[in-house]
Amino acid sequence: MQLGLLYSGGKDSTLAALVLERFYDITLVTAHFGVTDEYEHARQAADAAGFEFRALELDREVAEEAVERMREDGYPRNGIQHVHEAALEAVADLDFDAIADGTRRDDRVPTVSRAQAQSLEDRHGVDYLSPLVGFGRNAVDRIVDAELDVEVGPSEEIPRADYEAELRAVLAEEHGEGAIREVFPDHDQTYVHGLRE
Amino acid sequence: MQLGLLYSGGKDSTLAALVLERFYDITLVTAHFGVTDEYEHARQAADAAGFEFRALELDREVAEEAVERMREDGYPRNGIQHVHEAALEAVADLDFDAIADGTRRDDRVPTVSRAQAQSLEDRHGVDYLSPLVGFGRNAVDRIVDAELDVEVGPSEEIPRADYEAELRAVLAEEHGEGAIREVFPDHDQTYVHGLRE
Repeated sequence: MQLGLLYSGGKDSTLAALVLERFYDITLVTAHFGVTDEYEHARQAADAAGFEFRALELDREVAEEAVERMREDGYPRNGIQHVHEAALEAVADLDFDAIADGTRRDDRVPTVSRAQAQSLEDRHGVDYLSPLVGFGRNAVDRIVDAELDVEVGPSEEIPRADYEAELRAVLAEEHGEGAIREVFPDHDQTYVHGLRE
Repeated sequence: MQLGLLYSGGKDSTLAALVLERFYDITLVTAHFGVTDEYEHARQAADAAGFEFRALELDREVAEEAVERMREDGYPRNGIQHVHEAALEAVADLDFDAIADGTRRDDRVPTVSRAQAQSLEDRHGVDYLSPLVGFGRNAVDRIVDAELDVEVGPSEEIPRADYEAELRAVLAEEHGEGAIREVFPDHDQTYVHGLRE
């Protein structure tokens, strides 16, 4: 069975791939807007972890809607949720038997409710899996320590390909660099360099 | 890391073990009340799937409380939830680093909310995982078809060791055979004979 997993190059989505690897032929799919080439970092992380990779370009309109929402809110949560939902719809339109993401139990964003999951499955004729949604933060951290070679650091310094990097770029293009600080708090990101020996 | 997984001998808890096998040393733990020896079916399923097994006897009082609740309600859901919560508390008191169960996304019972999960983890100093809670019914069925040798049939005819078998026995002991039909609707169960070749 072919499964497309939304992938950022970070620890959560890499661990999600390890959880599902036994059951599916996995392609890691990184959604982007063609604004920066940061999705190439995800390609490198996918290679290092030994998975197939595919980049999937979304309409720039999705990024613009997300950025407007983030500016109105003054925080990024709903904008990121908007992009994640659009990315799930886009990957569900590809030719996979199943799709998945790296959502964890303790994530505040993105989240996919049971009703959203069922709707996605019914409308697209795919199975949707969130393999980490039954894993808490400590369990994820302990498993990642054992399985992955991970770099941790502030958002601006860690190579990665989550939606945030491009949304920051779109925000800066449309509203100047200062708009980034108004929307995004400082926080750490992770980038996977590969599996542990 | 040592993980204790609540185990019935059915397809869901067996699949949960396969999902976590890569990351933990797993012991399948079957809770029972010492009323029947049906947990021996779970031991056989665990052997067939290649996992360590442990039986865990709960207080009969838990079964009696569950049965009273089921008689009051006229359906088994809340009684089974009561037993599952008691079983999670008991397995969390053993010496595992992590505990888990086979709860699926579409299960109506038992369910463990995010708040219950966090409380269990905080009070017992363990990680709690529900590895199938991000898997829908169709995904579980397709993976089980590929991975497990499963027997399906009516509840009364399938060897198994979920709480239901002993709760039926306690119900019959205390209120006669007729009480079973008043509480339990007919439905199919599964029993795992082993992994596919």
